[in-house]
Amino acid sequence: MAKESSSIPCTPLLKDELDIVIPTIRNLDFLEMWRPFFQPYHLIIVQDGDPSKTIKVPEGFDYELYNRNDINRILGPKAACISFKDSACRCFGYMVSKKKYIYTIDDDCFVAKDPTGKEINALEQHIKNLLSPATPHFFNTLYDPYREGADFVRGYPFSLREGARTAVSHGLWLNIPDYDAPTQLVKPRERNTRYVDAVLTIPKGTLFPMCGMNLAFDRELIGPAMYFGLMGDGQPIGRYDDMWAGWCTKVICDHLGLGIKTGLPYIWHSKASNPFVNLKKEYKGIFWQEELIPFFQSAVLSKECTTVQKCYIELSKQVREKLGKIDPYFTKLADAMVTWIEAWDDLNPPKVAAEVPNGPAKGK
Amino acid sequence: MAKESSSIPCTPLLKDELDIVIPTIRNLDFLEMWRPFFQPYHLIIVQDGDPSKTIKVPEGFDYELYNRNDINRILGPKAACISFKDSACRCFGYMVSKKKYIYTIDDDCFVAKDPTGKEINALEQHIKNLLSPATPHFFNTLYDPYREGADFVRGYPFSLREGARTAVSHGLWLNIPDYDAPTQLVKPRERNTRYVDAVLTIPKGTLFPMCGMNLAFDRELIGPAMYFGLMGDGQPIGRYDDMWAGWCTKVICDHLGLGIKTGLPYIWHSKASNPFVNLKKEYKGIFWQEELIPFFQSAVLSKECTTVQKCYIELSKQVREKLGKIDPYFTKLADAMVTWIEAWDDLNPPKVAAEVPNGPAKGK
Repeated sequence: MAKESSSIPCTPLLKDELDIVIPTIRNLDFLEMWRPFFQPYHLIIVQDGDPSKTIKVPEGFDYELYNRNDINRILGPKAACISFKDSACRCFGYMVSKKKYIYTIDDDCFVAKDPTGKEINALEQHIKNLLSPATPHFFNTLYDPYREGADFVRGYPFSLREGARTAVSHGLWLNIPDYDAPTQLVKPRERNTRYVDAVLTIPKGTLFPMCGMNLAFDRELIGPAMYFGLMGDGQPIGRYDDMWAGWCTKVICDHLGLGIKTGLPYIWHSKASNPFVNLKKEYKGIFWQEELIPFFQSAVLSKECTTVQKCYIELSKQVREKLGKIDPYFTKLADAMVTWIEAWDDLNPPKVAAEVPNGPAKGK
Repeated sequence: MAKESSSIPCTPLLKDELDIVIPTIRNLDFLEMWRPFFQPYHLIIVQDGDPSKTIKVPEGFDYELYNRNDINRILGPKAACISFKDSACRCFGYMVSKKKYIYTIDDDCFVAKDPTGKEINALEQHIKNLLSPATPHFFNTLYDPYREGADFVRGYPFSLREGARTAVSHGLWLNIPDYDAPTQLVKPRERNTRYVDAVLTIPKGTLFPMCGMNLAFDRELIGPAMYFGLMGDGQPIGRYDDMWAGWCTKVICDHLGLGIKTGLPYIWHSKASNPFVNLKKEYKGIFWQEELIPFFQSAVLSKECTTVQKCYIELSKQVREKLGKIDPYFTKLADAMVTWIEAWDDLNPPKVAAEVPNGPAKGK
């Protein structure tokens, strides 16, 4: 495998326009396997937990590393919006990046192989997904119509074939599936072995569970919505960080007429986390989620929300008003959502916050 | 291949509860290849065109055959709602069936092979799709959660995991994709070679292009919505019959809380139809469709619509009112929609028109 992996693609796509964000508490040995694919890119490592610990990064990678002390120094009191002792801290990396695109991956994810045995260049597939349009307004039964060998099928309205800009590319996982604690407990031996050779757009108006393990997005288009919430140390829940970000992002993408794709690429998820620990983290989320989903399904943003920031602030108000009743946690979260946007704007000059050229979505 | 195909499955699923409906104008030699899979089932053959022509059916199949004279005799003046010289006539077969399930297939569709070279039992996969629930209210990123080796992923609300009843199973096509005339003209050599090993639910609120080539449905749940419209002889359009049925069906399934799945199984579509002839048939549809899609996207059915028949009549009123302005054709079509339901109820005793037990969909 080392031999197969040794060649670096001649012209990596978007080399100077994409950062790879990795949250971690340990040495990044897993990067060795990703070397042929990741080495051309800049890494942003967000060190979680004890900041005095040294994280070893394999030689030859171009990176910057932020620990908790760095986060506190850079954000000051606003650092309170960044989770501690939870991989939700990764969103700090999105904020300090100056690139147009972000790819984020967990440090227990390795290079998967396609059914022919070829190593999958996950990042390249994500970039292809992001650079081609999405189809949120009508479902194409042959999946991604922009892919080679595919197209729009009979009955697909011609006026919708230009598609929408793609903001998010959600990749999947072979081996250990991303299950919740109850499912882990019930099916401890289940492995995902099915390679589904498809990329598709999550339709407008439909929510999905966005997993942060293998995720890419256009931070200029949607970055400020990618807040992973308050999890971990001092918070009543965990393991809903990426879900929260996904629901907020989907509502905002739908409002702004942007697309979210899911499917390829796969990574190899090596190890299931402890289901008992997970149950503790998820416990309240399992209950709260039953109210969160109807909330996000019915959330409507006003026409004045023409930027991601405006959408996000509007959403934070609705969280405060409608979810604050469930638990004081949501009032705290609504505050943190506002702080997050303030911190984002501090670190990112106004041009990044420019209006989305095509404005709010038309149609349904 | 003949050798591989010679064994008939010991216990074909739903043997006495499913009819196979085949519209045709020629001898049904294609059934030879399907023999191991179809022979246990009853066939309803709807002969299109010249009724004096004899259609040969390979020996050993259990079938009933209806030509235009039969349709006219059985339906009387109401036969006007059944298209002539167009495969839309197949919906007459749905009406005369007394079974719970229907599978319909075109006579230029053959047995496909999966990537391991094994012949695909399309009907068995359709039945599996119909007998397991659908997930129209939330997207599962690992596709069908009821399939072996898969489940609901983290973040999927527990209250939605019971799913919805599946009303329709939409299968796909290898080799010749179902393209419209303009795409056929532009890409004459494109073949679909990608086997996507997935079944997924089309989310609530999302329209899709339903192709009638390889389609199964639960006629007790949704049959009266499966009207293939007025096409062919004497009509201004063709090749929108299945699309029309699909849009009506989707709106009604969404209203009644029923699910529609797409993906597996594949059939092998042998031959592209003539793109010049197709363009002539589709020409007006290409324009009209741009108004039909917004119409169906915004169609709302009232709470009183608790049966498929009531939904369909309500939809016919909206067609008359809102689409009648586009062209007199739609007024004629709205009339035919009403006639279709009358004819359906004539042929099917009231018990089939029973209220859908779970009533209109809840939630969004």
